[in-house]
Amino acid sequence: MSSEEPSQNPTAEENSEKKISKKEAAKIERQRKRQEAAALSAAAAVSAVALDGEDPLAANYGEIPLNDLQSKEISGKKWTDVKDLNDGLKDQAVLVRGRAQAIRAVGKKMAFVVVRKRGFTVQCVLTVAQDVVSSQMVKFATSLSRESIVDIEGIVSVPAQPITGASQQVEIQVRKLYCVNMAIPTLPINIDDAARSEIEIEKALKAGEQLVRVNQDTRLNYRVLDIRTPANQGIFRIQCQIENIFRQFLLSEGFVGIHTPKLIAGSSEGGSAVFRLDYKGTPACLAQSPQLHKQMSICGDFGRVFEIGPVFRAEDSFTHRHLCEFTGLDVEMEINEHYSEVMDIVDRLFVTMFDGLNETCSKELEAINKQYPFEPLKYLRQTLRLTFEEGVQMLKESGVDVDPLGDLNTESERKLGQLVLEKYGTEFYILHRYPLGVRPFYTMPCHDDMKYSNSFDVFIRGEEIISGAQRVHVPEFLTERAQACGIDVNTISTYIDSFRYGAPPHGGFGVGLERVVMLFCALNNIRKTSLFPRDPQRITP
Amino acid sequence: MSSEEPSQNPTAEENSEKKISKKEAAKIERQRKRQEAAALSAAAAVSAVALDGEDPLAANYGEIPLNDLQSKEISGKKWTDVKDLNDGLKDQAVLVRGRAQAIRAVGKKMAFVVVRKRGFTVQCVLTVAQDVVSSQMVKFATSLSRESIVDIEGIVSVPAQPITGASQQVEIQVRKLYCVNMAIPTLPINIDDAARSEIEIEKALKAGEQLVRVNQDTRLNYRVLDIRTPANQGIFRIQCQIENIFRQFLLSEGFVGIHTPKLIAGSSEGGSAVFRLDYKGTPACLAQSPQLHKQMSICGDFGRVFEIGPVFRAEDSFTHRHLCEFTGLDVEMEINEHYSEVMDIVDRLFVTMFDGLNETCSKELEAINKQYPFEPLKYLRQTLRLTFEEGVQMLKESGVDVDPLGDLNTESERKLGQLVLEKYGTEFYILHRYPLGVRPFYTMPCHDDMKYSNSFDVFIRGEEIISGAQRVHVPEFLTERAQACGIDVNTISTYIDSFRYGAPPHGGFGVGLERVVMLFCALNNIRKTSLFPRDPQRITP
Repeated sequence: MSSEEPSQNPTAEENSEKKISKKEAAKIERQRKRQEAAALSAAAAVSAVALDGEDPLAANYGEIPLNDLQSKEISGKKWTDVKDLNDGLKDQAVLVRGRAQAIRAVGKKMAFVVVRKRGFTVQCVLTVAQDVVSSQMVKFATSLSRESIVDIEGIVSVPAQPITGASQQVEIQVRKLYCVNMAIPTLPINIDDAARSEIEIEKALKAGEQLVRVNQDTRLNYRVLDIRTPANQGIFRIQCQIENIFRQFLLSEGFVGIHTPKLIAGSSEGGSAVFRLDYKGTPACLAQSPQLHKQMSICGDFGRVFEIGPVFRAEDSFTHRHLCEFTGLDVEMEINEHYSEVMDIVDRLFVTMFDGLNETCSKELEAINKQYPFEPLKYLRQTLRLTFEEGVQMLKESGVDVDPLGDLNTESERKLGQLVLEKYGTEFYILHRYPLGVRPFYTMPCHDDMKYSNSFDVFIRGEEIISGAQRVHVPEFLTERAQACGIDVNTISTYIDSFRYGAPPHGGFGVGLERVVMLFCALNNIRKTSLFPRDPQRITP
Repeated sequence: MSSEEPSQNPTAEENSEKKISKKEAAKIERQRKRQEAAALSAAAAVSAVALDGEDPLAANYGEIPLNDLQSKEISGKKWTDVKDLNDGLKDQAVLVRGRAQAIRAVGKKMAFVVVRKRGFTVQCVLTVAQDVVSSQMVKFATSLSRESIVDIEGIVSVPAQPITGASQQVEIQVRKLYCVNMAIPTLPINIDDAARSEIEIEKALKAGEQLVRVNQDTRLNYRVLDIRTPANQGIFRIQCQIENIFRQFLLSEGFVGIHTPKLIAGSSEGGSAVFRLDYKGTPACLAQSPQLHKQMSICGDFGRVFEIGPVFRAEDSFTHRHLCEFTGLDVEMEINEHYSEVMDIVDRLFVTMFDGLNETCSKELEAINKQYPFEPLKYLRQTLRLTFEEGVQMLKESGVDVDPLGDLNTESERKLGQLVLEKYGTEFYILHRYPLGVRPFYTMPCHDDMKYSNSFDVFIRGEEIISGAQRVHVPEFLTERAQACGIDVNTISTYIDSFRYGAPPHGGFGVGLERVVMLFCALNNIRKTSLFPRDPQRITP
């Protein structure tokens, strides 16, 4: 473990076998030596400390050379997760790996290192004591750069006072401290700054202190640092849990998970918001949704299907809720009689999901709440359903005049969300029987009024989150509806043909995963809920 | 339900509201009438029958008009699934919806309709009897085109003899029969033909009968019909179950499911096999794997991640095992000491998966086996691990000479698979410590020999299915390895920078979902396990 240990590099001779030529091997060797020299030089400060005065405890700290990290041995050593450190481990020896989140010296005889792993933190204490911790070791600890990966061995202790600077209520009295991988000394953003709430910043400002505020773009530029904050760790764990509940619920209802192609010939569902590319000489595009293929899967007898996968929209939407690539949660199912069967699934699925998140993600929700305070979502045991006409009427009665056969704009949707919350006490509801003119060509018109359709949108906190409908399953009628909507039917002929071989009545819906997370947690920007977001101005990192 | 019932179309006047213009509404109305006329004309033969002789039972059969299928009512009627029909329902009235798979008249007084739903079939019997079934109704039944969707009401009966022509061992004595959606009279492929095994075809040929053999390309051209066969229904249910087990196992091991972008700047991992496109004026490409971003997620403190999503390869590979788009199952995890920690996950994950498939998918495996006979996969409770050098030695001893620092070709892999099966009794094993020269730039070299790497491939039935490795987590060394492999490091600078902020040692692997299904079931072509496959010559349907 000591940095003086000679590295076990292969000799140039060993490298002279044919697959890697002599020249190449020599080059690799040179590169490697250079790299190790660089690492050693980075560690020079600390290693020098160790040599300084010939510390007899030198083997207990230092930088681990790369060679030792190249799967050199299986020692059987047991690492303990930071989140599992508690007073049950009092007086026991533990080994933890994590990041040096904060390092603080107290004179030359003592240092604190707060070690973080997956959002959980523990305070590690170095106190100079004969045969245990040398002053050189304390110096080494304080020379670590923040966010470096460290291995710490020590004894768990329980302090008399509660610990405020770390999540775990025990300390580690350090015996050994190794740096596994050193971070650069100056990070583009500090995790403390990125994790700070607006409330803290404003509170400090009132007290005359100017704290760093990391803006959204900087966060995204250095996303690898940004996602280390407790709130972000929570956001993406919740996203995963939403997906789990979505799958489990649908599987229990007889749905089958499928994967449909993202590379498709022609122009997807039409419109300009499509990414085009050349597919081996054929004009192709990226699927704007799995709509056509999930319906084709219904024609292929799967009965009930769902898909979780990327959806591509080349829209120039610079809003808080649009992305050029997002994760679609899609559902399609045979219906026996009525599109309400689809709404029944939406209802039970989402109530199950909200219940599940509140039950299983309390720590994650707490972490998000700490940085971005929000009220828990209000929802009913049985989801409210209003017709579009009823919605328009409610808006009208409150003085907002909207086109009764147009779509609702964002403002009207928000307003209606408020009205519904006041009247029915829910922030989650279904609005159905939308005007036909504002829905896609494959939407089934109402049986009693061609102006309306067997369709619905679902809202969370006043924002649209789900679109669904019964689909036209008769090929001739589908062709006519496509033409009426200006779609070149030649580009979707295999889709339309699918309905010629016997097609059951069916319907379905689509949800954006990132929107569910955003709205459930009342976050203000969908970029916060996409791991590496893509918008019209961003395709990195 | 009778086709004479007037449709409740809105009048042209009702359509004259602003959102749908008068002209447009009239056009829709005309289109709709034309469509209904077409449907009526298609049903003419059958409806005529009903009128012919003024059948007092006319209300008990016929084609359901479209208007009745536009979510007209919620009747509360209960449909029974074909797979749930058994002798426990004897003498009970049931309503089923499914496809008319086969229709057979026995004189003018009797007809059989085999109804299929999601691969399960039931025989339905129409026998002329006063006040129950008219001869016109029998005629209607026999005029149905195959694969049409039908609703059948009747009484469950248990015949004395076993039923050979259907999966369910009960019959339905039909009382009512409605056509929900009529298939075109001549289908491009018949399901019976598509479901036939090679063995049946050859057996018939020996008996002097030439049965239709549906070739792979025709199947794919009419995939919506092809996927209705029992074997295909089984294949995609198994695919879904593989994904379920993959997720559940990894979740139970502390992994988090993530979604990384498929649209990326630059050239992905290099090489020519990349689909390029224009991203709002920026050159971009489709991710060849989530490699870079899943590693970045590890740098972002998620510890252990997995991703299920599409992977794009613009390779001109015309083999049985390559696709231009497939579903990747990707894993990345921190490692404490050794890449064997990653192999441990592979080992337990796949043994759990194989056990789970054998336990929960017996019906599906049986359906596949019937059309494509195969032996169950042989695998050990603890997966065999051989080093690449050991593999090369085994090949050498059997007379196959391979480059000890090159990659194995398909033929050598197959041969080694045979040798391993003979010696160790397993068709699933891990080969590790591959030559560095044949692995991607981000692969960590071995600590003791730069010619080799901390990497592995996993084989099923002699074919490679998984690639995995420890990765280089030191940015300077990673840069040098990339340059050595001819990668323009500028295009992956955000990736490399991710390691500058403290990076833990880590490793991972990737699997192709379609390959797992193909090899578990010993199928001969990956196009059989992709719902709508994409290869260099196919981007439809």
